[in-house]
This record gives sequence, C-alpha cells and structure tokens, in this order.
Amino acid sequence: MPSDRLAFEDFEPGRQFPLGPYPVSAEDIIAFASEFDPQPMHLDEEAGKASILGGLSASGWHTCAIIMRMFIDGYIGNSTSQGAPGVDSCKWLRPVLAGDTLSGTSTVVSARALQSKPGLGAVELRHEIVNQKGETVCTCENSGFFGLRSKEAGT
Amino acid sequence: MPSDRLAFEDFEPGRQFPLGPYPVSAEDIIAFASEFDPQPMHLDEEAGKASILGGLSASGWHTCAIIMRMFIDGYIGNSTSQGAPGVDSCKWLRPVLAGDTLSGTSTVVSARALQSKPGLGAVELRHEIVNQKGETVCTCENSGFFGLRSKEAGT
Repeated sequence: MPSDRLAFEDFEPGRQFPLGPYPVSAEDIIAFASEFDPQPMHLDEEAGKASILGGLSASGWHTCAIIMRMFIDGYIGNSTSQGAPGVDSCKWLRPVLAGDTLSGTSTVVSARALQSKPGLGAVELRHEIVNQKGETVCTCENSGFFGLRSKEAGT
Repeated sequence: MPSDRLAFEDFEPGRQFPLGPYPVSAEDIIAFASEFDPQPMHLDEEAGKASILGGLSASGWHTCAIIMRMFIDGYIGNSTSQGAPGVDSCKWLRPVLAGDTLSGTSTVVSARALQSKPGLGAVELRHEIVNQKGETVCTCENSGFFGLRSKEAGT
C-alpha cells in the first residue's frame, strides 16, 4: 500500500509549502534565551529597547528553531525526511519581537537523487518568513535528505 | 573606568576563543526536539539507530543553539555583543549523539567598524566544534556586531 507521506519525488522545483502561523510570546523568547542565548536583549524588555533590536527580541537561533517547527508542521512531519547536512545561508533581517506571529513559505529550488546514498535524494529549499505585518524577518536556504517513494514502496 | 568586557577592538584577526566543554544528554536532545524538531531520529534511540544518523541524535538546530551557548560562556557573555545579522554557513558534518561532549574554537576571520552604525563593528568568525573523540561535528561561519570600546568609554 503506497504511503501518503511526502517523498523525494514530490519535491518538484517551484513547489511551495505554506508555513505557520506561529505566535512568539515573551515567555518563549525568555525561556529559549535563558538556556541558549542569555544576552540582555533576549531576556529583558528594557534591555531590548536599549539595543539595536528595539525591544525584547528572539535569539536568531530561536527564530531558526521556530522555523524548523514550522517546517515540521507544514510538510516535513509528514514526509520521508532523513535530516539535513546544514544551512547554506540564513539572514535575520528584522527582529522577531515578543507578540509577533510568524508565517511564511518554503519553495523547492532543486532536487536530485543521491548516487552516494541509494534510496535518498537531496532537496534544496528556500524559505521566507514574515511577521504579522508582512515584513520579512528571515530568509534561509538549505538542503534536506528525503527518502525516495520507489525505495519506500520496495521495503 | 574602562570596562573589562571584550569590545570590537579586541577581536583581532587570528585571535581564537576556546569553547565548551558542553555535555549533551538524551534528555536534552528529546526536550529540544519535542518542541522544535519532532522527527523520530531526534526523539527515540531505536528510530535514531534505524536512520542514517545511527543513534539518538540532536536536531541540527539544537546543535546550533548549544554552540550559541558555548559562544556565550566562552566570550560573548562578557562582551559588547549587539547580536548578529545571520549565519553565512553551517555544516552538520557528523551526528551529535546522546552522551557526546562538545568543545571547539572560534577564530576571528576579519573585523571592520561599520560606517552605517557608528559605535558598532562587525566581526566575522569561523567556528569548529568537535566531539569527545576529536571528530569535527559542525563548522559554522557568521558575523556578529560588537560595540567599540572607544564608544563605550565615551558614554
């Protein structure tokens, strides 16, 4: 019986996947920053206002983690994903402030089956994340590994 | 009175900062993944063993967050850091497995005062993170903004 999970073959160049919405609270920002990035602008509203970020703002790495969760909920959670080799580029273009709600789009740039890893393909994706005002807060590019449907069907 | 915090002027090209050690537990891996990257290989030992990662392994974004914490404890926490514009590149070269202990080095690649943001400078850094076997698990490159000491002394 064929699976309904997204497999490598479904990631056709140009295909887009919507992401979010994901609300970001002050509590979330402070909890993440306390563990991983305890800089004043990520821990305290007044310190954030005094910084170049202009308010209590999420660590850039928190924004990345949130985006990962948006990928999972948007498409990767129902796919043959086998992880990723890294991040090609990630730009934190505007602060993600307490109370913001993020959404966005992942777009397939390219896809190729891997000679070195039979049954797997690499999918290159570009992501754009916006806040509730439609302002782009982050763009990222990376590749992920996805199992081939033909492989899955045969196992 | 001059501050003892690291300021832009202290980030001379070639200067290195040691990072870690940072032990990574199964509980940490599962807690992060449950919130941000709930894929089977980040949640369950057996699923990890069945994946190309070979065991319960940290989300790549968890590895990034841990590295951020290593930056904070290594040098950024006692600096004039004002955040960063993004990540130029990040390669997850080997899985970070439950029980691993990470350490590493940040190396200053270049530093330049910003015409557009008086009192701030951009420092380009390259980071290499290894596990307890000395295997490189991650390399990253990014830039960060740091306040100038001359500015700090004048305020």
